[in-house]
Amino acid sequence: MFTERIYNFSAGPSILPVPVLEQAAAELLNFGGTGTSVMEMSHRSKDFLAIFEETKALLKEVLGIPETHEPLFLQGGAWTQFAMIPLNLIGTTGKADYAVTGSFSNLAMKEAKKYGDIHVAATTADKNHTYIPKQSDLDLRPDAAYFHYCDNNTIFGTAWDYIPETGNVPLVCDMSSNILSKPIDVSKFGLIYAGAQKNMAPSGLTVVIIDKSLAGNELPITPTMLSYQTMIDKDSMHNTPSTYNIYILGLVLKWIKSQGGLVGMEKQNIEKAKVLYDYLDESALFKAAAVPAARSIMNVTFVTGNEDLDAAFAKEAAAKGMINLKGHRSVGGMRASMYNAMPKAGIDALVAFMKEFEARNK
Amino acid sequence: MFTERIYNFSAGPSILPVPVLEQAAAELLNFGGTGTSVMEMSHRSKDFLAIFEETKALLKEVLGIPETHEPLFLQGGAWTQFAMIPLNLIGTTGKADYAVTGSFSNLAMKEAKKYGDIHVAATTADKNHTYIPKQSDLDLRPDAAYFHYCDNNTIFGTAWDYIPETGNVPLVCDMSSNILSKPIDVSKFGLIYAGAQKNMAPSGLTVVIIDKSLAGNELPITPTMLSYQTMIDKDSMHNTPSTYNIYILGLVLKWIKSQGGLVGMEKQNIEKAKVLYDYLDESALFKAAAVPAARSIMNVTFVTGNEDLDAAFAKEAAAKGMINLKGHRSVGGMRASMYNAMPKAGIDALVAFMKEFEARNK
Repeated sequence: MFTERIYNFSAGPSILPVPVLEQAAAELLNFGGTGTSVMEMSHRSKDFLAIFEETKALLKEVLGIPETHEPLFLQGGAWTQFAMIPLNLIGTTGKADYAVTGSFSNLAMKEAKKYGDIHVAATTADKNHTYIPKQSDLDLRPDAAYFHYCDNNTIFGTAWDYIPETGNVPLVCDMSSNILSKPIDVSKFGLIYAGAQKNMAPSGLTVVIIDKSLAGNELPITPTMLSYQTMIDKDSMHNTPSTYNIYILGLVLKWIKSQGGLVGMEKQNIEKAKVLYDYLDESALFKAAAVPAARSIMNVTFVTGNEDLDAAFAKEAAAKGMINLKGHRSVGGMRASMYNAMPKAGIDALVAFMKEFEARNK
Repeated sequence: MFTERIYNFSAGPSILPVPVLEQAAAELLNFGGTGTSVMEMSHRSKDFLAIFEETKALLKEVLGIPETHEPLFLQGGAWTQFAMIPLNLIGTTGKADYAVTGSFSNLAMKEAKKYGDIHVAATTADKNHTYIPKQSDLDLRPDAAYFHYCDNNTIFGTAWDYIPETGNVPLVCDMSSNILSKPIDVSKFGLIYAGAQKNMAPSGLTVVIIDKSLAGNELPITPTMLSYQTMIDKDSMHNTPSTYNIYILGLVLKWIKSQGGLVGMEKQNIEKAKVLYDYLDESALFKAAAVPAARSIMNVTFVTGNEDLDAAFAKEAAAKGMINLKGHRSVGGMRASMYNAMPKAGIDALVAFMKEFEARNK
């Protein structure tokens, strides 16, 4: 039983900024003198539309979304995008290329096979996804309708350190676990998508940012709700969107601005990750799982090499208020997810405990 | 600016019980001594799974869901079900029958046409959906894979006063706007679905209750996320569900139990509706839009016959803290949605204001 908030290293759903939660709690029963909760507002009401427009404007501002692109507020998570992307985009040539750098990019690739000719442009399965392919390793087809990759691999703790060059082939990128963690050049992407439950909001919201010129080519069997063109035309309100999640996203975006925007966020994230990686590189007990060039600043995977010790570590850490440090079963060991909302004090506490644990287990 | 909560007659998203909102606010930053918000909990964590299992058990108990049926916690709203239902169920015979008694059942019927041979078994469009077809009016095909109808028509303020007899053809029912408002015999239905944002939880959650024997026949083009069988096999967690909405649904179900369950809820709902309908039947100014046999106890539609008066009424009511009384544009006039969470005091206040308004506008 914890009477105060603790450090939650969950990979997702995951930690949210305390000021956001405090504001949400304070105005839960009566938002801004409306006499109702945001949860109770009609999505067509003036009060909610003001929240929606503000959140959309903040997302455009913080990410630097150009006029060519439209942000959409959808449901169903990244897994729904795994189908929605080929249903909407593959029709032009019938072909798409995928890089497989982890579990989710592999699942995205397999789902797409229902809808067209799918080619694996690169895979890192040979070394259990501990690295990222080089540009020269990508076997790209010039007539692919798009090239899909996952920028940050939550389970394996790796991230692409470059944006692939694909000529005229649109880039489609899963940024579920690192969106809003660093500045990105949105104009380079045909489509970016992200489940909200890491850096944005509670689960139940999916953000898609699409180059509008790519929409409108959906296959005839596409459900209306899975048509990007429909959602662009209806400003994400073909039906009721997940209104409360959109409200929380707005609060999170204001908090990000208060932290210096994405430049400030990236600086904090690099500093936090450096504390942990530096210790991992000097520790005799703990080892980072990913190769240095591919290390994620969002999800840090590490092992002791001894499964019993790994289990003891996660259990003892949890008792001290540092929870969800057990690694995914496909990697083993430990994983510390340190999204935007994780304070540096959380990493300092983790490393202090790791040092103490190492001293006890030489 | 309202310093206290007001009466929200929104058709959805809509009013939630005050004790539910109070509890949600109180434990928003630290749920049950876990040191985290429910919004931040991994869907695979012990803490969240306890919430999930409790909510599921409460839904089964409150609705009396038999072992043959499985409740699912999905995303995408009723509109996603409009495609998901034919994608999963029409494959057995290629045919399905629809009753069109309002806007949403019409849209459901049109969406299904993408996936099979769709027949309109009855329509009430001839009288702007002010009535419900009789059993003898239903033109049913014995080889339909299912018969679809919408039990409560939110926009038109009508409700079916009987469960259709369809022989061996499974009943598929949209209960978005009246689920949990009255006891129902779930065993009579092949599939029941409902967006959460009326009687259950904030928007972003869709509850489906399916006869498990109907699943597993999806068309090959069905996205994995739109497969009922996948969601049955994965206990609604093929990916991250909308966790916070599920938590709120659990709180709402506990509140319903405290009100005497669905028997108690129906008694309250009938009492509330009677106050308004009785006044409408005696008023010289206001008239109910729906015929008596088809009147909904959730959404009451009414008109003065004068558009300027209608507009003045909705505006004056809003200034007095009775909001969202403007009718849908396809019906005009006014609509009072009085879901489970609307207290009888809200209806009393509304009728008192209607009487005062009528006296001023003879």
